[in-house]
Amino acid sequence: MSTINHQFKLAARPAGNVKRSDFDYTSEALRDPNEGEVVVKILYVSLDPAMRGWMNESKASYMPPVEIGEVMRAIAVGRVVASKNAQFAVGDHVTGLLGVQEYAYSTGQGLNKVDPKLAPLPLYLGALGMTGLTAYFGLLDVGQPKAGDTVVVSGAAGAVGAVVGQIAKLKGARVVGIAGGADKCRYLVDELGFDAAIDYKSENVMAALRQHCPKGVDVYFDNVGGDILDAVLTQLAHGARVVICGAISQYNNTTPMKGPSNYMALMVKRATMRGVMVADYYPRAMEAIKDMGPWIATGKIKTREDIAAGLESFPDVFQKLFSGENNGKLVLKVAEA
Amino acid sequence: MSTINHQFKLAARPAGNVKRSDFDYTSEALRDPNEGEVVVKILYVSLDPAMRGWMNESKASYMPPVEIGEVMRAIAVGRVVASKNAQFAVGDHVTGLLGVQEYAYSTGQGLNKVDPKLAPLPLYLGALGMTGLTAYFGLLDVGQPKAGDTVVVSGAAGAVGAVVGQIAKLKGARVVGIAGGADKCRYLVDELGFDAAIDYKSENVMAALRQHCPKGVDVYFDNVGGDILDAVLTQLAHGARVVICGAISQYNNTTPMKGPSNYMALMVKRATMRGVMVADYYPRAMEAIKDMGPWIATGKIKTREDIAAGLESFPDVFQKLFSGENNGKLVLKVAEA
Repeated sequence: MSTINHQFKLAARPAGNVKRSDFDYTSEALRDPNEGEVVVKILYVSLDPAMRGWMNESKASYMPPVEIGEVMRAIAVGRVVASKNAQFAVGDHVTGLLGVQEYAYSTGQGLNKVDPKLAPLPLYLGALGMTGLTAYFGLLDVGQPKAGDTVVVSGAAGAVGAVVGQIAKLKGARVVGIAGGADKCRYLVDELGFDAAIDYKSENVMAALRQHCPKGVDVYFDNVGGDILDAVLTQLAHGARVVICGAISQYNNTTPMKGPSNYMALMVKRATMRGVMVADYYPRAMEAIKDMGPWIATGKIKTREDIAAGLESFPDVFQKLFSGENNGKLVLKVAEA
Repeated sequence: MSTINHQFKLAARPAGNVKRSDFDYTSEALRDPNEGEVVVKILYVSLDPAMRGWMNESKASYMPPVEIGEVMRAIAVGRVVASKNAQFAVGDHVTGLLGVQEYAYSTGQGLNKVDPKLAPLPLYLGALGMTGLTAYFGLLDVGQPKAGDTVVVSGAAGAVGAVVGQIAKLKGARVVGIAGGADKCRYLVDELGFDAAIDYKSENVMAALRQHCPKGVDVYFDNVGGDILDAVLTQLAHGARVVICGAISQYNNTTPMKGPSNYMALMVKRATMRGVMVADYYPRAMEAIKDMGPWIATGKIKTREDIAAGLESFPDVFQKLFSGENNGKLVLKVAEA
């Protein structure tokens, strides 16, 4: 076992896009676990848009900000390499908020065991983890699509969006994805079975929505906010449900977030706008896993993990989420095993 | 009976505030009613913020726009002066979408009889009419306040807002009104029994909300949109309901409407944003009237009508809605009886 732990600590609150200088890459000596603790060797770190929000000073978030000097918060999966906690044995694989680092100490709180024989480890950070739960409950519990409904999802080639669209298809909806670039759009239609895809980089989103959603949009699952949210609001069907999951187009703003100018459509169309917070659904996680496990195992839901290598590349790889360069669930591989 | 009908017809789509030149004030000869028609002599015309939207070319509204050359659409109350419709007799008092004019022809569709002995006629345009139904169902059906909840209402001294606040008090909520000016704020607290009032013209709305809503805002009934909506979004309690009824601060914009920058609070606070469209509740109108009638009769709900005289003053009086000069339900008196 290594005796050194490398870590990314927040050095400054980023203005706009994250830069390498917003972090200190540090090393410190490992110590033995205290009574009740485990030491986890981190194998994969999940890179999620929400992390950008945690870097801000905002009190309006659902989690306290990461403090300057603190290890950057992140979900990760790893292997227990030392344990003074009866719940966890050396060799157990676990996931939790372990941070952007090589090793983490944990009291076991919020740490969950995962089985690498049932699924590859990165999947527990994606479709079998937080992003899968977000997609499952955000769509089914908040969006409530009925068979025959038209479901539109933005960030459709992303980790959450791709799963949302595939679950909606399984539930009998017509599914239209919005993504950036012809490759992603082809992937949505040809590989994932979406009914249509709109390339927001080359198409007029509003015109394309009119074309692909002739009866209006019954459920809109929004990962991006900004102009795309505004465009979809103009095409809502009567009684539509707008699920607010993220606003990735706005997270690097240095000016206030752009609010949806067309929000009065909620009134005109008797529509509802509601958010999904995955933490609310942890007590019901088994409902999702009971469905998602077989769907993934039988290929009814396809997933794609974009695995980048090397802890040291964290700030640059993280930025791919915002440039749209990632293909599927973005994960940083920290160690082989 | 007069032989001439004076009318306000839309002459141009207003840019920003309504001007006199946006209308033609015309006169035309009255004719006898056709078979099935009644002629209504209009006594009071209701002036409502929604009318500003009807003047725009927008297709995104819940009603078609008023066409250029068409009589300006408005709800009014009047007396039947000629009838070839078995449902209505000369002398009946009626209310409906009769327009900004002295006389209206109607097939009887959408025309409802009212009883001037039960309540003064202007009340049928206010608390016993559309604004009362909007307040009642918007608050109780969409907002769903529970006893002990904190309810905030903007445009609180307006026709809808004042009723919303009083119903919320009757249901056991803590009620905070937002209005413009010390007089209106005093009226809300001293006359209508609100727990607190915030003068947005002289106070920092966010700081005042923090002071008056220490447990956060459970229900926000929004009549104004803009910066005030954004301020309230930052103070939502967990599970809050945001009722979108209007956005009077934005109706005269010549640039796109300001959307709520802080809409992600819906996610963080597990809150819901939904509109109220009064027309959806027409089938349930009796539920409201059964409650509102006695509440008004016994003084549990106080109403205030701001009655301006003279059809000819329509464009100027209408503008008072947007300058905030009106006190209570704004009504234009067209004829004595």
